[in-house]
Amino acid sequence: MSRLIAQRAAATASMLAVHDDAAVIAHALAFESALATAQAVEGVIPAGAAQAIAAACAALEIDPAALAEEAALAGTLAIPLVARLRAALPPDVAPLAHKGATSQDVADTVMMRQVVAAHALLQADATRIDAALAALAQAEAERPAIGRTLLQDALPIGFGLRIAHWRAGIVEAATRLSAEIAAHACVQLGGAAGTRAGMDGKGEAVARRMAAQLGLTPSPPWHGRRGGVAAIAASLGILIGAAGKMARDVALLAQNGVGEAREPAIPGRGGSSAMAHKRNPTGCQVALAAATRAPGLVAGVLGGLPQEEERGLGGWQAEAPALAELFCLASGSLDALAVVAEGLEIDAGAIARNLDAAGPGRDIGESAGITAALLKIERKG
Amino acid sequence: MSRLIAQRAAATASMLAVHDDAAVIAHALAFESALATAQAVEGVIPAGAAQAIAAACAALEIDPAALAEEAALAGTLAIPLVARLRAALPPDVAPLAHKGATSQDVADTVMMRQVVAAHALLQADATRIDAALAALAQAEAERPAIGRTLLQDALPIGFGLRIAHWRAGIVEAATRLSAEIAAHACVQLGGAAGTRAGMDGKGEAVARRMAAQLGLTPSPPWHGRRGGVAAIAASLGILIGAAGKMARDVALLAQNGVGEAREPAIPGRGGSSAMAHKRNPTGCQVALAAATRAPGLVAGVLGGLPQEEERGLGGWQAEAPALAELFCLASGSLDALAVVAEGLEIDAGAIARNLDAAGPGRDIGESAGITAALLKIERKG
Amino acid sequence: MSRLIAQRAAATASMLAVHDDAAVIAHALAFESALATAQAVEGVIPAGAAQAIAAACAALEIDPAALAEEAALAGTLAIPLVARLRAALPPDVAPLAHKGATSQDVADTVMMRQVVAAHALLQADATRIDAALAALAQAEAERPAIGRTLLQDALPIGFGLRIAHWRAGIVEAATRLSAEIAAHACVQLGGAAGTRAGMDGKGEAVARRMAAQLGLTPSPPWHGRRGGVAAIAASLGILIGAAGKMARDVALLAQNGVGEAREPAIPGRGGSSAMAHKRNPTGCQVALAAATRAPGLVAGVLGGLPQEEERGLGGWQAEAPALAELFCLASGSLDALAVVAEGLEIDAGAIARNLDAAGPGRDIGESAGITAALLKIERKG
Amino acid sequence: MSRLIAQRAAATASMLAVHDDAAVIAHALAFESALATAQAVEGVIPAGAAQAIAAACAALEIDPAALAEEAALAGTLAIPLVARLRAALPPDVAPLAHKGATSQDVADTVMMRQVVAAHALLQADATRIDAALAALAQAEAERPAIGRTLLQDALPIGFGLRIAHWRAGIVEAATRLSAEIAAHACVQLGGAAGTRAGMDGKGEAVARRMAAQLGLTPSPPWHGRRGGVAAIAASLGILIGAAGKMARDVALLAQNGVGEAREPAIPGRGGSSAMAHKRNPTGCQVALAAATRAPGLVAGVLGGLPQEEERGLGGWQAEAPALAELFCLASGSLDALAVVAEGLEIDAGAIARNLDAAGPGRDIGESAGITAALLKIERKG
Repeated sequence: MSRLIAQRAAATASMLAVHDDAAVIAHALAFESALATAQAVEGVIPAGAAQAIAAACAALEIDPAALAEEAALAGTLAIPLVARLRAALPPDVAPLAHKGATSQDVADTVMMRQVVAAHALLQADATRIDAALAALAQAEAERPAIGRTLLQDALPIGFGLRIAHWRAGIVEAATRLSAEIAAHACVQLGGAAGTRAGMDGKGEAVARRMAAQLGLTPSPPWHGRRGGVAAIAASLGILIGAAGKMARDVALLAQNGVGEAREPAIPGRGGSSAMAHKRNPTGCQVALAAATRAPGLVAGVLGGLPQEEERGLGGWQAEAPALAELFCLASGSLDALAVVAEGLEIDAGAIARNLDAAGPGRDIGESAGITAALLKIERKG
Repeated sequence: MSRLIAQRAAATASMLAVHDDAAVIAHALAFESALATAQAVEGVIPAGAAQAIAAACAALEIDPAALAEEAALAGTLAIPLVARLRAALPPDVAPLAHKGATSQDVADTVMMRQVVAAHALLQADATRIDAALAALAQAEAERPAIGRTLLQDALPIGFGLRIAHWRAGIVEAATRLSAEIAAHACVQLGGAAGTRAGMDGKGEAVARRMAAQLGLTPSPPWHGRRGGVAAIAASLGILIGAAGKMARDVALLAQNGVGEAREPAIPGRGGSSAMAHKRNPTGCQVALAAATRAPGLVAGVLGGLPQEEERGLGGWQAEAPALAELFCLASGSLDALAVVAEGLEIDAGAIARNLDAAGPGRDIGESAGITAALLKIERKG
Repeated sequence: MSRLIAQRAAATASMLAVHDDAAVIAHALAFESALATAQAVEGVIPAGAAQAIAAACAALEIDPAALAEEAALAGTLAIPLVARLRAALPPDVAPLAHKGATSQDVADTVMMRQVVAAHALLQADATRIDAALAALAQAEAERPAIGRTLLQDALPIGFGLRIAHWRAGIVEAATRLSAEIAAHACVQLGGAAGTRAGMDGKGEAVARRMAAQLGLTPSPPWHGRRGGVAAIAASLGILIGAAGKMARDVALLAQNGVGEAREPAIPGRGGSSAMAHKRNPTGCQVALAAATRAPGLVAGVLGGLPQEEERGLGGWQAEAPALAELFCLASGSLDALAVVAEGLEIDAGAIARNLDAAGPGRDIGESAGITAALLKIERKG
Repeated sequence: MSRLIAQRAAATASMLAVHDDAAVIAHALAFESALATAQAVEGVIPAGAAQAIAAACAALEIDPAALAEEAALAGTLAIPLVARLRAALPPDVAPLAHKGATSQDVADTVMMRQVVAAHALLQADATRIDAALAALAQAEAERPAIGRTLLQDALPIGFGLRIAHWRAGIVEAATRLSAEIAAHACVQLGGAAGTRAGMDGKGEAVARRMAAQLGLTPSPPWHGRRGGVAAIAASLGILIGAAGKMARDVALLAQNGVGEAREPAIPGRGGSSAMAHKRNPTGCQVALAAATRAPGLVAGVLGGLPQEEERGLGGWQAEAPALAELFCLASGSLDALAVVAEGLEIDAGAIARNLDAAGPGRDIGESAGITAALLKIERKG
């Protein structure tokens, strides 16, 4: 029942792996293991029980297909997963697994572990784009080219200025994403009603230890307070849009009547099943399709914000799929544009011809200075 | 690299199968087979070549994972698929496969075959909901209950009137979806630029024959004219919203302070990992999560409508994933609500108590007549 | 406190008038007048009372600013409006005004009267576009031009084929809109809980009479069943998207390196505050901005569908502004494109040059036949 | 042609004033005045010319209706506005007005001045909500109440914990909004192609002076790089969603079968035109309608991000209306909830009754500690 063809058209294989069943199961078991370990340190459960639980989490083999069926029936992953875990434990230890936790604790923590892993992948591609575009912008900073506004020839610009804007847009968006993830990729541990009941008053300490072990930010429970999730989603939407802006421009520049820049030639990429000679801007296609899909996915997360009371019905369950899809789209887009940025073919002759044809002279104003200012914007996080 | 756990939480197994890799490959080969067969009948290619192509399509075994990688690189499924098909044919026949067609012809036809298959699944659940709610509405038509507006007690209604509205909303939306699919689940055959060049003037006849063989509606090419796709997407969004309305009401009625109706008890469903006694409205959760996600997916399709010239860049590539997701969400929602509708537990005592507590008497006005009028709305298509 | 500058940038003056305060007040009073008149015919209130109410509705002068303040406080327009109406009536007649009706009855009926008026305006522009594009498509059906796919030169097409697709997309979308409006521009008369209580069993007959008088479709109450509203919104979104497709193409064709077509020169239109010689595709700008804004507005209406019980909290209150905005955007878009269609400047020399430069010959396949087939699609409703 | 009734239902009068025609014209003239003044300081134009321009900007009276018509025709506000300004100047000074600037410079700067003014209004309401909810959360921190998850009774919580979450969600969202506005409410001065040509190399210095005078952040031009606008829009969407969460909860708590809290009684607010005794949660209604509309508006801004080249066609023109609408919705929502927060009626008896009926004891776990932690989150900016 795989949907690999459709998914790989839009996402990298490594990003799909971040969201596959094996990763979900591993993160869920990591939650249970970290919970037991932290509870043992805080004296909530015996150390021996925690060791048994951690060992069972490490050893447990779970069939994703069967788990998926049971989780779909139960309405939550945690119930069949915890049942399997407890079945693998001695009867006296079994009730101590998942102690004080609720299904949403598992689901949210899994989601945020995926966010962190997904973010690392995006950062690698953002670094490549950043470097490649910075070099291009610098090299092309003073080359006069016709600027275009409202899709009409306007006044000259430095060709590198356009590229510096692409880079600045992507870098600023990547920095925002990093900051939101640093702030909001939080462990979730609230228990059934978000009060950390049943943990002998050690819930806060347990949650801190879990955050450290799981590579997440500590936080009070956030079951019904989902602004952080929404901010990560929106930051991804802005990043995908910034990538889409570069893609739009490259595709316009690559038009036959324009010809100022084009994607690099890659064997097997950008062909046509009907016209063997054609070279399609396939990287731009991936990025533009992502930019078409992303805004609605962000809207879906925003639309779920008014969640009911302590833990809502339907709103938060809509988030993880949207977040996964946004990360997948971002991965496909940035990966495609990293290749485009690193191999962009710039045609100086076409640029000069188009400028001459437009005829407004060669005064590029403060293009070089603005390019330099834009290049000073650094990616952070 | 499967994402079964997340997908099954929102969709039925049968709907996921409609969109899996095997289905995509089978539909794509059905396209190539139907194309060759129709071209042979019209004299565009020799009959023997068509037989060889059809036989190869029937026999070809394709590894989805490898195909997915190549398709992702190429930017289109058709290129690696047609390459495999041609490699399985004698050299003189190979060039006659995919003759006159373009990648988007394959992609759009595959998408519409999936639409038709997906629709059949939804209709089965819509039929169940229709029947179950009609019976309930009739039975409860005259039972006085407190009506609620702006989440406050208002005036009495017949309890069946509320149910009749659920049914009418879903039935009307299902009828709209059927009509849009009948009109717009069209075969795509336009060739590289949508002119049906290279088919000896027989393109229109070939397309008609293909439509008949593939169970689709005949049509002029529609590569850049995507209103039909958008209408199917919007109809799904409205259907999912109508289901969400029923789910919202059932969840509200099932609240502890209200208690007028609740989902049926199903072993393994609606439990809590923290509170064993709790019975969660899990069917409503699935439907409400779907209703949270659907509007943005529809927006994504609408946002891609202004596609460039003969075949666009990014807009249409964004549609098939959105359509698949909408069908998946609709399947999960309707399937869950069919179970809810068929087993809805109505608590006549609670209804009476709540009405008495509200105190506005028992005049249900024309509730019964309105219920009868609503029940006359029939599902069509 | 007017926002005319921003609104007129996107909408026609006549469409803004459909949604202005005077129109809202007039429609609301028309509701009250028609209600009383119909109730008198059915014997629910005395004929003299109805005459007095109708006369008061005709004579009442209401200050929109004061009404707006009170309505904002009350959370509904009907309360201060009915208070004014009753104050203008003799004490024995006053309680008979608005008898059996609820605020949402007024709000929904006003909204649907505006839908009908707005639709008439759109139809006029759709007729202009339809006629102008049909003539152009016919005239240009056989002119060979380079077709473009994925923003790259592909194979030749008849230039008229492209235009025929623009027309077909808009005509199909306009037909869908008309059909949804005919079905769903319904009178609303349900009373407080949607049961038509307090009308002596004559509610259904009263509603039918009101529908006839107000030019709306009769219907059972639909306070919480909003699929019809959503369908009208989605149809508008598709229409705006179809217009956006034409605008995208015209803007691309008008690029300096392409030059195959451009908007007509209109004094005062498309200038630049910085470059006096420049001719911007301003009609396309209006249509493309509309196509950017519309999808989210549709999503907002879809997102409100799961409304609570008999009359919801927040969902339906979100619809009327979105519907008004969609009609406004459609008016600006279609009006601008009617001008573009009627005056489109086609440059046969540029078309020929571009085709020669692309070099794939002049075989336009079945372009002419497909154009003829597309031109047979008629606008209905 | 006013649409006051519809607008005031969703927005405060003061926020509407921020976006009215007079404000737009004043900001546009402030731009021209600041431009001339800065250019004179930098020696780009004579000091006397700048004084004349500033004086004319101060004295100019512009009829909004006429300006709106001309701007709609031109496709930009700046052209008719600058024409009026130049007509009021001596012939030798006239060409020096708007020197080096382009229409979008005016439009974007006007938009950001409105953002700053709008933000100040929101902050006032956020401060009220912050203070009122903090006090309530503290006072109710230890009162045991039944917690509800998936709309079912779950385990006890401190009633104040729920309120502390409302506050934290709104405070965090307001802080994010402030940060994005501080970073991205930038002056726009790029000239026709974003190069600051025609300003004698003093463009950067001129822009800095203008930013200081206009209360905006200095920046390189950002005509086609719109991530900052998108981030402001998304932050508003998250803020409106956080307010919607509080509204959802208050409305649920105010249900007749629950009764734990309700909006304060305000004369003229929350009435029913059909049921005089009813008290509707009208503040919640405003906030929930806003939360229904906002996600799509954010999506519209995100959808416009892939703008064409130096200054795009349709994408940025779609932003200002969406941003204005989001600020209006936020104003209505926060203003309504400030009243709710300051007057929230909490029914201790109902809370105790519901807890007893649920029966899970009175252990509120670490509720008080979590409440304290949440109250430490401060609003910044």
